Amino acid sequence: MTKINSLTGMPDLHDSEDKKSFSSKLFTVEKKLKKIFTNFNFKEIRTPMLEDADLFLRSVGSTSDIVNKEIYSFNDRNNKAIALRPEGTASVIRSIVERKLENSTHKLWYLGPMWRYERPQKGRYRQFNQAGIEILGLPEGLPEFEIISLVCSIIQELNIKNCIIKINHLGSPDEKEKFSKALVSYLKEYEHMLDEKDKLRLRNNPLRVLDTKNLNTQKILKEAPSIRDFIDDASLLLLKKIKSQFSDICKIDIDHSLVRGLDYYSGFVFEAISFDLGAQDSFLGGGRYDQLSSQLGGKEMPSIGFAVGLERLSEIVDVEEDTKIKISFIIATSNLEENAYKIAHQIRRLNDQVVLDCYLKEGSLKSKLRKAHKNNSDYAIIVGEEELENNTVIIKSLQDESTNQKVMPVDQLDSFFQDL
Amino acid sequence: MTKINSLTGMPDLHDSEDKKSFSSKLFTVEKKLKKIFTNFNFKEIRTPMLEDADLFLRSVGSTSDIVNKEIYSFNDRNNKAIALRPEGTASVIRSIVERKLENSTHKLWYLGPMWRYERPQKGRYRQFNQAGIEILGLPEGLPEFEIISLVCSIIQELNIKNCIIKINHLGSPDEKEKFSKALVSYLKEYEHMLDEKDKLRLRNNPLRVLDTKNLNTQKILKEAPSIRDFIDDASLLLLKKIKSQFSDICKIDIDHSLVRGLDYYSGFVFEAISFDLGAQDSFLGGGRYDQLSSQLGGKEMPSIGFAVGLERLSEIVDVEEDTKIKISFIIATSNLEENAYKIAHQIRRLNDQVVLDCYLKEGSLKSKLRKAHKNNSDYAIIVGEEELENNTVIIKSLQDESTNQKVMPVDQLDSFFQDL
Repeated sequence: MTKINSLTGMPDLHDSEDKKSFSSKLFTVEKKLKKIFTNFNFKEIRTPMLEDADLFLRSVGSTSDIVNKEIYSFNDRNNKAIALRPEGTASVIRSIVERKLENSTHKLWYLGPMWRYERPQKGRYRQFNQAGIEILGLPEGLPEFEIISLVCSIIQELNIKNCIIKINHLGSPDEKEKFSKALVSYLKEYEHMLDEKDKLRLRNNPLRVLDTKNLNTQKILKEAPSIRDFIDDASLLLLKKIKSQFSDICKIDIDHSLVRGLDYYSGFVFEAISFDLGAQDSFLGGGRYDQLSSQLGGKEMPSIGFAVGLERLSEIVDVEEDTKIKISFIIATSNLEENAYKIAHQIRRLNDQVVLDCYLKEGSLKSKLRKAHKNNSDYAIIVGEEELENNTVIIKSLQDESTNQKVMPVDQLDSFFQDL
Repeated sequence: MTKINSLTGMPDLHDSEDKKSFSSKLFTVEKKLKKIFTNFNFKEIRTPMLEDADLFLRSVGSTSDIVNKEIYSFNDRNNKAIALRPEGTASVIRSIVERKLENSTHKLWYLGPMWRYERPQKGRYRQFNQAGIEILGLPEGLPEFEIISLVCSIIQELNIKNCIIKINHLGSPDEKEKFSKALVSYLKEYEHMLDEKDKLRLRNNPLRVLDTKNLNTQKILKEAPSIRDFIDDASLLLLKKIKSQFSDICKIDIDHSLVRGLDYYSGFVFEAISFDLGAQDSFLGGGRYDQLSSQLGGKEMPSIGFAVGLERLSEIVDVEEDTKIKISFIIATSNLEENAYKIAHQIRRLNDQVVLDCYLKEGSLKSKLRKAHKNNSDYAIIVGEEELENNTVIIKSLQDESTNQKVMPVDQLDSFFQDL
């Protein structure tokens, strides 16, 4: 019978004893992020994986990179256009608007898979993972500080080296629009010198020309108008304050050429990049998007947030999972095995900081002890026929070879286990 | 502008301060399950949400209830039939076969959303959540004990009352087939008395007639052949041993009419039902499926597992999340707010057992303290202009009204925070 394979660009993730494997790292990163978000008292929001495709056309913008990079969409049986979510923010706002919660404040986090349809390349999958946070209902001010504090906490807790946070201010929607017009009128003169990609950006989403990788365009941009001349003093002061507050934790650069790929940003924007990542060096990005709620049919709701790519993050972190004590439970009898198993069940409940790994495979005691060593167990508990008859077990320390194994009555096992 | 709503049958989940809300309960249940699986040393496996639709037709069986209840499938841009996974096991085996790991043993868990296309009803969604475990590469024996130990641990840790575990043995594939033939030949005589649903089952998947809700059919079944007469003594002994081992933890019934909805089961099968759930009373089910790996083009690999429905589980559990100490950080100054925020950032790292909720909204100190009380904070840390100038903060206990608030120098805050 032929095998069925996984779909292109949709990898399986397997945790394993090897904590340096990519999957194990990604799972550890997830746990650490959840802990950070929780300790900031952010609440989890989990929106469905599928949405009305219209949601993303209307929010992310039909000219943004995300849509150009192809949303994974299809028609359902009723011929309705459905999309697998390409990012998290639009769904969060959709959910708040649908529940009429725009008048409250919210501190939310999400984490989960997202999709794009573009042809998968190295390190870029069709199903990938993102986490993000949103602070909703609060205008510019403290939320900007909290959000950079969160970014710094991620960098600190995950031990990310060689990174930098770029911050910028795109002004009010009005100021952003004025700057955009000035930029277009400057670039129009040089249009014939731009490559096709930048020409397309100039027509559809001119601010994105600032992100060009084309060296010629970069030269042309040197003399272009800067957002710095369009925003007010308060905006500049905010950038300076944030830089001075957090610079002892992570290098922070005010970069007036920083725009963000999505149409909905205005005001404070930022991006964290790593020098260990190659060309696609940004692993986290976000900003303020006060207009999105009303774009989606809701009331005005000032909002700020960021998203972080877990695959990229997993490449640059240096973390280890908090380890628990590990015990290998070895049943060295076959005909009475089920009574032995009961011992494992009973002690397991006594200490939830202990991993009790019950060896289920037939085989010699020697091979099981070898496996226990290999898997870094702290102790082995061995139950043989003689021990079962005498209501005892054997306990053997595997980390400290100098201590002998000892026989212990089953009724003392409880307190041994609790005191670990 | 019109609102965009979530898709039918795909609810949002919002965690909140109200730990009795359905979403909060579901999140807590997930955390507890992950802890149980981890403490049994099971490893997480995460397969993609989308698969080749063929995978489920071939594994779950085209006549099983899952397929009858409509897999959520669509054609992608290359006209390939894609399915949103309806359950977890088929993908897990697909993944093991694809990576050629059938010769090793694996103890795996998964948790995540699944989909069905059927019309949503109360308590039944198009996107729902399941967790499950699989023990792969090990024949009948200890794995059966471990799996029931896991089920009992879930029942104990989640405080599930009024439930019962039904167990049965479907014999070898050969014995199951013989029994099935005997059942068909018995029921053929009564075919004219069956309702349409049971007639269909008789034709497509005769063992499922045993699950009938039709009282007449149930009467007819009283005299039908029983699987008990087709399985060997070892199988009966296994059922008795498991019942005797775990009956002190949860009521266990040997029920020879228990079959499972999926085609791929043979050998030991089981189901946990709750008397608090109404007609759809099963919240967990599983069994042995030694043939699935070769059905999917892999090598033979003895396997056993179960799946548990998180929405149903959340209805019957009685759990609370492990609580952390909670501190409300209140900034009672506006013009210097960013220096105040820095204090929060610095102490936060010192104790990861503390939730530090920074109040970001403008407003009076009084209203913020009221909110801190309402949210069950243990302490408030207050930073006003005077405190900032003197490099101090105010600490106020919110649980113990008798203690006065006190002024504390910022450099003593570290040790206060660490010692919490």
